[in-house]
Amino acid sequence: MINEQTAINLTHMGTLAKAAARELARATTEQKNRALLAIADALLANEDAILAENALDLEDGRANGLSPALLDRMSLQKRLPSIAADVRSVAALPDPVGHEFDVRTLDNGLRVSRRRTPIGVIGVIYEARPNVTVDVAALTLKSSNAVILRGGKEIRRSNVALLHVLRNAMNSEGLPADAMQYIDSTDRQYITELLRLHEYVDLIIPRGGAALHKLCRENSTIPVITGGIGICHAFVDESADLDKALPIIDNGRTQRPSVCNSLDTVLVHQNVAAQFLPRIVEHLAPKGVTFRAEPRAKALLDSAALNGVRETIQDAGPEDFDTEWMALILGLKVVDNLDEAIDHIQQHSMNHSDSILTRDTANAERFLNEVDSSAVMLNASTRFNDGGQLGLGAEVAVSTQKLHARGPMALEELTTYKWVVIGDGHVRT
Amino acid sequence: MINEQTAINLTHMGTLAKAAARELARATTEQKNRALLAIADALLANEDAILAENALDLEDGRANGLSPALLDRMSLQKRLPSIAADVRSVAALPDPVGHEFDVRTLDNGLRVSRRRTPIGVIGVIYEARPNVTVDVAALTLKSSNAVILRGGKEIRRSNVALLHVLRNAMNSEGLPADAMQYIDSTDRQYITELLRLHEYVDLIIPRGGAALHKLCRENSTIPVITGGIGICHAFVDESADLDKALPIIDNGRTQRPSVCNSLDTVLVHQNVAAQFLPRIVEHLAPKGVTFRAEPRAKALLDSAALNGVRETIQDAGPEDFDTEWMALILGLKVVDNLDEAIDHIQQHSMNHSDSILTRDTANAERFLNEVDSSAVMLNASTRFNDGGQLGLGAEVAVSTQKLHARGPMALEELTTYKWVVIGDGHVRT
Repeated sequence: MINEQTAINLTHMGTLAKAAARELARATTEQKNRALLAIADALLANEDAILAENALDLEDGRANGLSPALLDRMSLQKRLPSIAADVRSVAALPDPVGHEFDVRTLDNGLRVSRRRTPIGVIGVIYEARPNVTVDVAALTLKSSNAVILRGGKEIRRSNVALLHVLRNAMNSEGLPADAMQYIDSTDRQYITELLRLHEYVDLIIPRGGAALHKLCRENSTIPVITGGIGICHAFVDESADLDKALPIIDNGRTQRPSVCNSLDTVLVHQNVAAQFLPRIVEHLAPKGVTFRAEPRAKALLDSAALNGVRETIQDAGPEDFDTEWMALILGLKVVDNLDEAIDHIQQHSMNHSDSILTRDTANAERFLNEVDSSAVMLNASTRFNDGGQLGLGAEVAVSTQKLHARGPMALEELTTYKWVVIGDGHVRT
Repeated sequence: MINEQTAINLTHMGTLAKAAARELARATTEQKNRALLAIADALLANEDAILAENALDLEDGRANGLSPALLDRMSLQKRLPSIAADVRSVAALPDPVGHEFDVRTLDNGLRVSRRRTPIGVIGVIYEARPNVTVDVAALTLKSSNAVILRGGKEIRRSNVALLHVLRNAMNSEGLPADAMQYIDSTDRQYITELLRLHEYVDLIIPRGGAALHKLCRENSTIPVITGGIGICHAFVDESADLDKALPIIDNGRTQRPSVCNSLDTVLVHQNVAAQFLPRIVEHLAPKGVTFRAEPRAKALLDSAALNGVRETIQDAGPEDFDTEWMALILGLKVVDNLDEAIDHIQQHSMNHSDSILTRDTANAERFLNEVDSSAVMLNASTRFNDGGQLGLGAEVAVSTQKLHARGPMALEELTTYKWVVIGDGHVRT
């Protein structure tokens, strides 16, 4: 049997990771960047070996009847050059570690500042996407953190091959290979064990569905930053520029239907609903979108002259507005006003990304302030809640929690800070 | 029986708190400041009623044999004017909510920023100190958060009286009284229940000992920020100005022995140990300090001419360097060099506050970078790790965690942020 596995000692992995993190905290920006470039080179130099393991994962996946979409996400074929290019761009980003902020000199002469430091050891639990393995390793290296990775079981062999390459590159540049470790087992007991390794691990980032979030919330003794689940809304206010609203809704729903910042529900102000709802359906139905309309929206659509796309509209079921569709499905609802829109979002949102489409400044400001999501948009697509799009360069996850980091977790969000207090014999009086 | 209690419905409290938080998020700075001033006035206007309940708590405490130090911390006698003054100074601090930072316009014309928002509902579990009740309520109000409080059982009646005053003042200023709620029970089951109220509570701040921290870590499904426990170190390097080092050690240990940023262990470089250790003992023993010396330090002290203070020195026991003394006790240890000092601190510190006393810039910089504590000091007392001392105005706790906030948790640390993305029909390409 190919998958026979030996027992994994997570405490030992934690010990090694903690020591590696301490070493990495002392590494210079130049050392880290050299290692990143070495990793990029090594990914290309070892393309054949990596793809051979990846092919075995894909073969198993096909045999196990995985969907073409999932198999596509698992595949590294022809993708290593762009993954290597992403690693090079992380090398080009500024190093967050050591950056001082809030610098001031107090009346007593003490010089006080906050200085960015690495978090330490980060555990990342993620889905069957081998590109994430490299992305996360690059970002944690650049921010001087050690990482313990556990990816989806479907890509175990691909990940082991990638880690081999990553660790060798670290070694070749004189940085600790144990800063990047992989839990090489499909046994989920090790996930639970990782969640309780608080003596060694400082932060857990789970990427995946609601079940994984719940597992982490219920079992982790380590701080967890969850995210990556979004029920995203667009509210079309009565003053919206409907010609601009339509492409924003189109972009939110159809550009990449399976991601967390894609659009799930459109709320339309009652004064423009009769006019705008049929336009949404007529524009998006030909692109394969189907609709779940609540009674008021359904009634308006039923009385509209829709050209051969009526069968794309269903009555919304009781849980439809609490569903992240991850597919070409769009919920439609008529609301009386801004208050009802905000209420609906507070009740059904996962606090990810929500957008208002309006020309009314006061309504815009109320929406931006009162909708309690990681990103709120005015006249822009929810798809912009992304580290690259917001100018952060890259991200390990999009946080929907309120503590530490909200929205894209990029390099700065992978650091913490310490207070640095410099005196000359100062004592407290 | 006076203490008979009815069952408490925490879910109901959570629901009310969440609604109050949403209302408070819309309050203006002026409204919040008016309410803070009303609270300060009301504390003084209701002094008699508050002190009457406080007297009953103190009476019970004496009957139960609580220590004079604890009874002193519990007492509100003559302290309400200074507590009210602290509330007024919170009113004078800048409002963190709504502050925008990292503002930029991207190449595509999108205006992107981060905007500070309240966290939401915060649960605070704390010790038998009624002043904390008012401090926390004032800081959470100013940062637009609702708070659910649970103080030490010894001050239940004082707290209930304070909450009555606080809530009435909120009402009188048109702000939601349910933004400040108290778990009026000495039953610890409600603490465990609070820790699992993740549907309503966004953050738990436990103030108290290691057992409470462990309870939170093991049971909370809500993010927790722990702190307030410190085993604090001073390393006296060979180049230290010993005349400045001595007052810093004195201040760290004797100024307020029972607090978390007080000094527990002095590490002395071997090249100055024979000279400096006797000075430490001769200076501090007359102030009531006793010493726990590891073998090398003990041997040096044994061979020194100590004047009648030799009996203050004991051999350090195996757990002495892992003990937060909270008393006039000081650990003494000789180290070979900076590396050994840093190693000792990494092994024994609680990541609270650690100081290096040196004139060597390179050693200072290594210590400040490599010691992984919430505050690191150069030639200054560990006692400066405090919100007021670091210029933040006030604090609810000193965090020794790495996520979200490190060191003093003041107004800014009681907020989170959201991304605000402003476009004009922008879609992602």
